[in-house]
Amino acid sequence: MFPKALESTIDALRTLPGVGARTAERYALALLTKEPGVSDTIATALSNLHSGVGTCQKTFVFTEPDEEISSHYLDPKRDKQTIVVVSDPLDALAIEKTGEFKGTYHVLGGLLSPIDNITPDDLHIAQLMERIKEDSVAELILATNASVEGESTAMYINRELEETDIKISRLARGIPVGVDIEYTDQITLGRALEHRQVIR
Amino acid sequence: MFPKALESTIDALRTLPGVGARTAERYALALLTKEPGVSDTIATALSNLHSGVGTCQKTFVFTEPDEEISSHYLDPKRDKQTIVVVSDPLDALAIEKTGEFKGTYHVLGGLLSPIDNITPDDLHIAQLMERIKEDSVAELILATNASVEGESTAMYINRELEETDIKISRLARGIPVGVDIEYTDQITLGRALEHRQVIR
Repeated sequence: MFPKALESTIDALRTLPGVGARTAERYALALLTKEPGVSDTIATALSNLHSGVGTCQKTFVFTEPDEEISSHYLDPKRDKQTIVVVSDPLDALAIEKTGEFKGTYHVLGGLLSPIDNITPDDLHIAQLMERIKEDSVAELILATNASVEGESTAMYINRELEETDIKISRLARGIPVGVDIEYTDQITLGRALEHRQVIR
Repeated sequence: MFPKALESTIDALRTLPGVGARTAERYALALLTKEPGVSDTIATALSNLHSGVGTCQKTFVFTEPDEEISSHYLDPKRDKQTIVVVSDPLDALAIEKTGEFKGTYHVLGGLLSPIDNITPDDLHIAQLMERIKEDSVAELILATNASVEGESTAMYINRELEETDIKISRLARGIPVGVDIEYTDQITLGRALEHRQVIR
């Protein structure tokens, strides 16, 4: 009673992250009860996904496929002397959504990880150093995660720029806005105390 | 920094049930990091979904698109005198998966609902009555949900068959297997007590 077309849709949807047999079944059956146009829209979007997304050859953020350098970097209003360094394009998108950053981004394309054999040569670090010279960058915000890899990548870049007088910072760690102190985990609370922000 | 192709994929994925902006984004970005073949597989499956699923003209379960009557009903091993009546094809699939039912199904295509203006004529009730005569059905298991609509649909069919001597039952309600008594909600526990199963 499970037609082949339904089976293959369920199998295909299971490749989405965190989607198991049950969820895939729910998705497939919901689409089946909707008009065919809905499934077709998703199908078309997915077929065009890879060919429709390019990578900026300067900052490595996502671009339209016909752009070599992202319009974001080319925008004269963006401050090219301030760079937020992130591990992947999603992190850049997340920061951009805050609307609080007027500089530019640099996507490393990963994080240093001796276990996974990822060395500085595998990341866009050389290109970062080039940009720093080219655009006479004044400030670098190292926005990598607080994981071992994130911290060591940040430390590596920091060390590489020891001889320069570029201002280097990490994103602030502390209690998230809207979270009560009593519900904050101990590590976060410890960090918030350590990096307490001076009022006067 | 959000290329159009990515935006439209995210928008398209948001039409899946329970998928909001965040999850759609996560799906789209996960597909983007995988090779294009993965997205293409989903795209192909979705394009073929509607054309690849038919409806049995006798039992209204899902069929392969070239079958008028489901192979399930035509199977001589299935008992045509015992029918499980369900609201939609998914319920039939769920019951079939138990492997405990050797009869056939009848999908009503919905439930009676005065509010939504769904009357007996909107459901496959006439076809059920026809099957009952045709196959001289001996037992009907009314497997509709315990909702107001499910109960009243079951009651309606029961009343329609008052003059016959067909055996009619509802699925047992009680404590789910593997759930402790102390964690069972009061309504279920009440029902379990009311419909206690006699041992001796």
